Amino acid sequence: MKKVLLAFSGGLDTSYCAIYLSQELGLEVYAALVDTGGFSAEEIQEIERRAYALGVKQFTHLDEKESYYKSCIKYMIFGNVLKNNTYPLSVSAERVTQALSIANFAKSIGADFVAHGSTGAGNDQVRFDMVFQAIIPDVEIITPIRDMKLSREEEIEYLRNHGVEMDFTKAQYSINKGIWGTSVGGKETLTSHLPLPESAYPTQLSKQEAERVTIVFKNGEPVGLNDEVFESPVQVIQRLQEIAGPFAIGRDIHVGDTIIGIKGRVGFEAAAPMVIIKAHHTLEKHTLTKWQLYWKDQLATWYGNWLHEGQLLDPTMRDIEAFLESTQQTVTGKVHVLLAPYRFQVEGIESEHDLMSDKFGSYGEMNRAWTADDVKGFTKIFGNQTKLYHNVNNTLAAWSTEK
Amino acid sequence: MKKVLLAFSGGLDTSYCAIYLSQELGLEVYAALVDTGGFSAEEIQEIERRAYALGVKQFTHLDEKESYYKSCIKYMIFGNVLKNNTYPLSVSAERVTQALSIANFAKSIGADFVAHGSTGAGNDQVRFDMVFQAIIPDVEIITPIRDMKLSREEEIEYLRNHGVEMDFTKAQYSINKGIWGTSVGGKETLTSHLPLPESAYPTQLSKQEAERVTIVFKNGEPVGLNDEVFESPVQVIQRLQEIAGPFAIGRDIHVGDTIIGIKGRVGFEAAAPMVIIKAHHTLEKHTLTKWQLYWKDQLATWYGNWLHEGQLLDPTMRDIEAFLESTQQTVTGKVHVLLAPYRFQVEGIESEHDLMSDKFGSYGEMNRAWTADDVKGFTKIFGNQTKLYHNVNNTLAAWSTEK
Amino acid sequence: MKKVLLAFSGGLDTSYCAIYLSQELGLEVYAALVDTGGFSAEEIQEIERRAYALGVKQFTHLDEKESYYKSCIKYMIFGNVLKNNTYPLSVSAERVTQALSIANFAKSIGADFVAHGSTGAGNDQVRFDMVFQAIIPDVEIITPIRDMKLSREEEIEYLRNHGVEMDFTKAQYSINKGIWGTSVGGKETLTSHLPLPESAYPTQLSKQEAERVTIVFKNGEPVGLNDEVFESPVQVIQRLQEIAGPFAIGRDIHVGDTIIGIKGRVGFEAAAPMVIIKAHHTLEKHTLTKWQLYWKDQLATWYGNWLHEGQLLDPTMRDIEAFLESTQQTVTGKVHVLLAPYRFQVEGIESEHDLMSDKFGSYGEMNRAWTADDVKGFTKIFGNQTKLYHNVNNTLAAWSTEK
Amino acid sequence: MKKVLLAFSGGLDTSYCAIYLSQELGLEVYAALVDTGGFSAEEIQEIERRAYALGVKQFTHLDEKESYYKSCIKYMIFGNVLKNNTYPLSVSAERVTQALSIANFAKSIGADFVAHGSTGAGNDQVRFDMVFQAIIPDVEIITPIRDMKLSREEEIEYLRNHGVEMDFTKAQYSINKGIWGTSVGGKETLTSHLPLPESAYPTQLSKQEAERVTIVFKNGEPVGLNDEVFESPVQVIQRLQEIAGPFAIGRDIHVGDTIIGIKGRVGFEAAAPMVIIKAHHTLEKHTLTKWQLYWKDQLATWYGNWLHEGQLLDPTMRDIEAFLESTQQTVTGKVHVLLAPYRFQVEGIESEHDLMSDKFGSYGEMNRAWTADDVKGFTKIFGNQTKLYHNVNNTLAAWSTEK
Repeated sequence: MKKVLLAFSGGLDTSYCAIYLSQELGLEVYAALVDTGGFSAEEIQEIERRAYALGVKQFTHLDEKESYYKSCIKYMIFGNVLKNNTYPLSVSAERVTQALSIANFAKSIGADFVAHGSTGAGNDQVRFDMVFQAIIPDVEIITPIRDMKLSREEEIEYLRNHGVEMDFTKAQYSINKGIWGTSVGGKETLTSHLPLPESAYPTQLSKQEAERVTIVFKNGEPVGLNDEVFESPVQVIQRLQEIAGPFAIGRDIHVGDTIIGIKGRVGFEAAAPMVIIKAHHTLEKHTLTKWQLYWKDQLATWYGNWLHEGQLLDPTMRDIEAFLESTQQTVTGKVHVLLAPYRFQVEGIESEHDLMSDKFGSYGEMNRAWTADDVKGFTKIFGNQTKLYHNVNNTLAAWSTEK
Repeated sequence: MKKVLLAFSGGLDTSYCAIYLSQELGLEVYAALVDTGGFSAEEIQEIERRAYALGVKQFTHLDEKESYYKSCIKYMIFGNVLKNNTYPLSVSAERVTQALSIANFAKSIGADFVAHGSTGAGNDQVRFDMVFQAIIPDVEIITPIRDMKLSREEEIEYLRNHGVEMDFTKAQYSINKGIWGTSVGGKETLTSHLPLPESAYPTQLSKQEAERVTIVFKNGEPVGLNDEVFESPVQVIQRLQEIAGPFAIGRDIHVGDTIIGIKGRVGFEAAAPMVIIKAHHTLEKHTLTKWQLYWKDQLATWYGNWLHEGQLLDPTMRDIEAFLESTQQTVTGKVHVLLAPYRFQVEGIESEHDLMSDKFGSYGEMNRAWTADDVKGFTKIFGNQTKLYHNVNNTLAAWSTEK
Repeated sequence: MKKVLLAFSGGLDTSYCAIYLSQELGLEVYAALVDTGGFSAEEIQEIERRAYALGVKQFTHLDEKESYYKSCIKYMIFGNVLKNNTYPLSVSAERVTQALSIANFAKSIGADFVAHGSTGAGNDQVRFDMVFQAIIPDVEIITPIRDMKLSREEEIEYLRNHGVEMDFTKAQYSINKGIWGTSVGGKETLTSHLPLPESAYPTQLSKQEAERVTIVFKNGEPVGLNDEVFESPVQVIQRLQEIAGPFAIGRDIHVGDTIIGIKGRVGFEAAAPMVIIKAHHTLEKHTLTKWQLYWKDQLATWYGNWLHEGQLLDPTMRDIEAFLESTQQTVTGKVHVLLAPYRFQVEGIESEHDLMSDKFGSYGEMNRAWTADDVKGFTKIFGNQTKLYHNVNNTLAAWSTEK
Repeated sequence: MKKVLLAFSGGLDTSYCAIYLSQELGLEVYAALVDTGGFSAEEIQEIERRAYALGVKQFTHLDEKESYYKSCIKYMIFGNVLKNNTYPLSVSAERVTQALSIANFAKSIGADFVAHGSTGAGNDQVRFDMVFQAIIPDVEIITPIRDMKLSREEEIEYLRNHGVEMDFTKAQYSINKGIWGTSVGGKETLTSHLPLPESAYPTQLSKQEAERVTIVFKNGEPVGLNDEVFESPVQVIQRLQEIAGPFAIGRDIHVGDTIIGIKGRVGFEAAAPMVIIKAHHTLEKHTLTKWQLYWKDQLATWYGNWLHEGQLLDPTMRDIEAFLESTQQTVTGKVHVLLAPYRFQVEGIESEHDLMSDKFGSYGEMNRAWTADDVKGFTKIFGNQTKLYHNVNNTLAAWSTEK
């Protein structure tokens, strides 16, 4: 009997797949839940229970929180990656990590097929398929929902007919939760003009009193909070989420380009990711040179876009990661952040690598390392070519009157 | 008698210069106040009064709000320019505009000298000198404060000795106000770790009830608010500032690279600029293609940096403006924004050019213009080279275990 | 009877299509030859004769040399576009132009179908289909060779069976000729290590004596040669090709990334394009500022890649063209080029916009517009941040010993 | 007695400095010749002899060929760095290396002063001063020629008056030779329109018969020639120069932006550098992915410019080097090059990492890893957004008729 590995989440689509793969295709179904931080222990147990109830041969819980951090989140922090300056790529990066995990697990159990529950309309199908084709090119991909263009109603009927009992009510908002943020989709996100209502967000405002938190970074990675040191940045993220989440911080709506070329709109809440990225960025503004900041920005924008499109395996991504890693040598220090309802403010930083050292001169105050004449000389040379250009071409008169 | 044109603001430094230029250097002093939106009618009258009290031959009020908008602000909106993703370049762009205005006015009155009150420690001296050297290369620049390294106390004593009566108390925070934002400097901004106190900001929170506003854009320019149409985007900015300012929106602290290579930290409040930029950017996310957004971002980052460094006259800036202008053809529509104390939220947009049109398919829903097989084919080809790379180099096994 | 417009070249593949479309599919076949400069008047007559012999309803010769120049070649000159610093995109740009021409002509004759002879292995199918889908979305595309995976032998047999008489011998090298260069493929280009033999190139070396030519540019466009003025840049290109071609100049082998992700290797000869691009670039080095040159280069690289991938219709391309156009205002002057067997050398330029004007100072000689002290001051400030970085981080000792 | 370290080349300027520093300033003069590959053993001996004849306390020969390679040349190869696609930065990179060497040596001997013979008109003064200020900030820089604006005649008279005997005839062309190329300046390079005469080039054409050479690369570094393995890439460069130089290959004239903002024109001959860069680039075109090539190009252009401007110590340069290093993992293989009088041609490559592997499909031939339908699906999705853009905005009709 041939083996299929099913990327399983316990929802309607993958429940359908579990039955379909064994009943219709006669395969031995292995179900794996890739855990990127979106599930509680109880939820995982419940998903496992449901998997076996659906008759899978084996259920496996793949805890990928650490590998997700190491292969993606770390570099998104290094690059301050926010898609279109807005969205921390919560789902995009997670999906690629899940695809990698499933592919490697499929290889390890010698699966003949691999299956996922994606539809034909979104980004996830591309991310899953592309990673699978690269890592397990000889394992065939099965995607029943996409291939049969199944509607929700057809799936429910099929499951009922096969004696499956589960809660078939559709949630008003579809939620995807992970360590790097939670996405929220609903009827409003299908329009261009409506915001999500307050109630759509899983985490509701429950703290009113502003609170301060200090994030400790070492070589660009978050390693501590206030006076607490953690074993892993994953724990810093999780703990910060507990602290900052109840302020309803880090919510926004992202409008972005899907891999397949249309625009998509999605709400999200990502308190810890947004606070960490802004804090990290501020620390960098103090510790990196002008051109390090410039090039990090240019490269990270592209890196984030390409990751979003599922292309984490392109070796260019390794090259950019090497660049980013190199920049983080001095990104060590503390960042103080004020948390308040619906907003936060980076208040300041402390770092031994702070280039705003007053050993050399303070901006706007008297300086010690150069003279007024030095700056005059600098200015003359700095403006030399532009002056020359206008002089040769006699273009300045025109410019100033036209504008 | 030789003529000097003094860039005059009525403050201590330029008051010193007015006396010094006539008394010590024997020049006929023409004072000009370049108005980029930071002064009320009363303040301008008071500055004029003071100028004549200091004995200037002629005082001129140069209203450059419209030219400032046309030559700088417009393109900063087109480019969503925020230096280091933070600061709307409030002072940087303004200073360049002021330098251009002074230079052109100096030419028109046939000035032999031009003077400004900059010290030797900041960015402004570079911006002034560089523009002057390009536009009026034969007019000598005089900068008494910089050249004599005068302290505040020395200036006050000199003015007192020359019978000048004015308020010599130093403000706790130095404020620079203009149409595109207000900067705030003080003892905290000379450190890396302290935020500005609430009281440092000129505009205090005075609205508590959240409020909605709709900004109307035409080809990227803000032309209306709610149902009101304005004669000029300058008026939109000013009116929006009146509406949004009392929410204490758009405050932050920027840490940036000064032209002379050290880091500088400055607080700012810029309600209208921040709301306009975020609203404009959201409209673009709906109406531009992926690569338009990408390249706008890459070019605008550099444009903002170069403008900050006073290089507006580099012809490269014209070329980038041509690019930006070209992108704005479809950036027409309405943007709805929620204003609340200390924060705002872009809620949605309406545009005839919205690419999230459901004529073609909605993200995550069934699509109409392509099939599941199309996406499968796409995915295979889209991942082709990466797959090939790893196959040829046998690099995937290593990658997935190491990470 | 339904109409099909066939992109017709008179070769084996499109001859097959002509018969197939009428005989098997019962369509009224309109054949159009898009002329982008690769055909002599005799060849066009012969292709027309053959088309009618194959029974097409109507043959049309679409002369697109001027539109090809205006929509593509002009910008490739402005951008000095050489794919991977090697290849003038001879075929890529031509194919997109042909697709545009066919699409517009199909619209004008009200075609129900459009057909092309591409196989399933190359770039051309993507370029044709993508342009057709954008411009004539309701016209169905037919590609017999691709869809039936026909071999050369099968096509020949089919044609013979339908009484077609033509020369069926396969050329040793497949040649694609156009105004912007000629590509050459053969058994060597299917390997990575073999060069093309001398005999593979259509234009053989026939001039031995070195010769000088002066190219006249106006706003970046080639408008004259030596003392001759031409009506159109197309004529300059054609005339220069006649002069330079016999030197066997501008030959190389390009290895590039195809749209479908694999590497492709192709030989080419492009005397006029290579000479024009290098001459134009040299003129720019004299007349543009440092950052104009920098940004032109960054944008043009991407522009060339995206054009190669058939994406000319992306509005980003219009935005980059606006940028490039803006840069060309001062790119006016003469460029002197030495032509010799297998090589050429740009010898110098003359331009009123030359920034190497000795009015201001000559490099390496005494200068007039600044002093040694100015440069010293400049240097101190120019190196300020790096100095500060190493001082704060104490990183220099390590750097110099490790390296 | 205070010590000065003089960067000594034995020419007129530094000979003047040697006398001046001891006679006028009363310093103990240490002379150091930084050897970056431009001197024969005899020349070094002669320079040493002359140094002692000028009365220096100590002469030191600093052989920096290997460190020059490791800190600069290696990365210029990785990045295929040609300034403005023309010039291998022969002098620029060398001067920075020399500055580093002098600075470190000055530190090791505890020099109180450091001196160089630069004038006030060129790039070298900036490179020397900036590196000195970063590495030995407390050591004062002395530049007699620049500070006293000495003319050639004044220097000669001064030296004669001090009894110095040397050949004072001015060479017709000023030559700067190093391992990474030789620059040539003369009266023609002070114009924009004149080429250098054949006789100006130090290496004259002496081989007529074309010759083939194979360059072996390992991880991007040249490690062998034909069947010969070398201890160091420096030796490969030197040996290749011996082989290729007599073909008068790699000559050109570069027009570039000097650090001080004016244009400079310089001839050069750089047979080995040009052949290595073109060979390396071709190997990369076979072994790197599309986006690796793209980003290498964008970053290396900036890297070359910044290196040219003497900014090697900016940490951004380390970050880009990390990027470049990461890309070179698969750049291993052989490159076959044809050398002929005045030109060379890369003929092909062999590499285990060649992505043009026919295991997967050959461009233009039948493919094995995907179907025609895959490409059709790809094309539909690939063109999706552009199609959508034009459909929403109804912009295509306009586009095709206007152009």
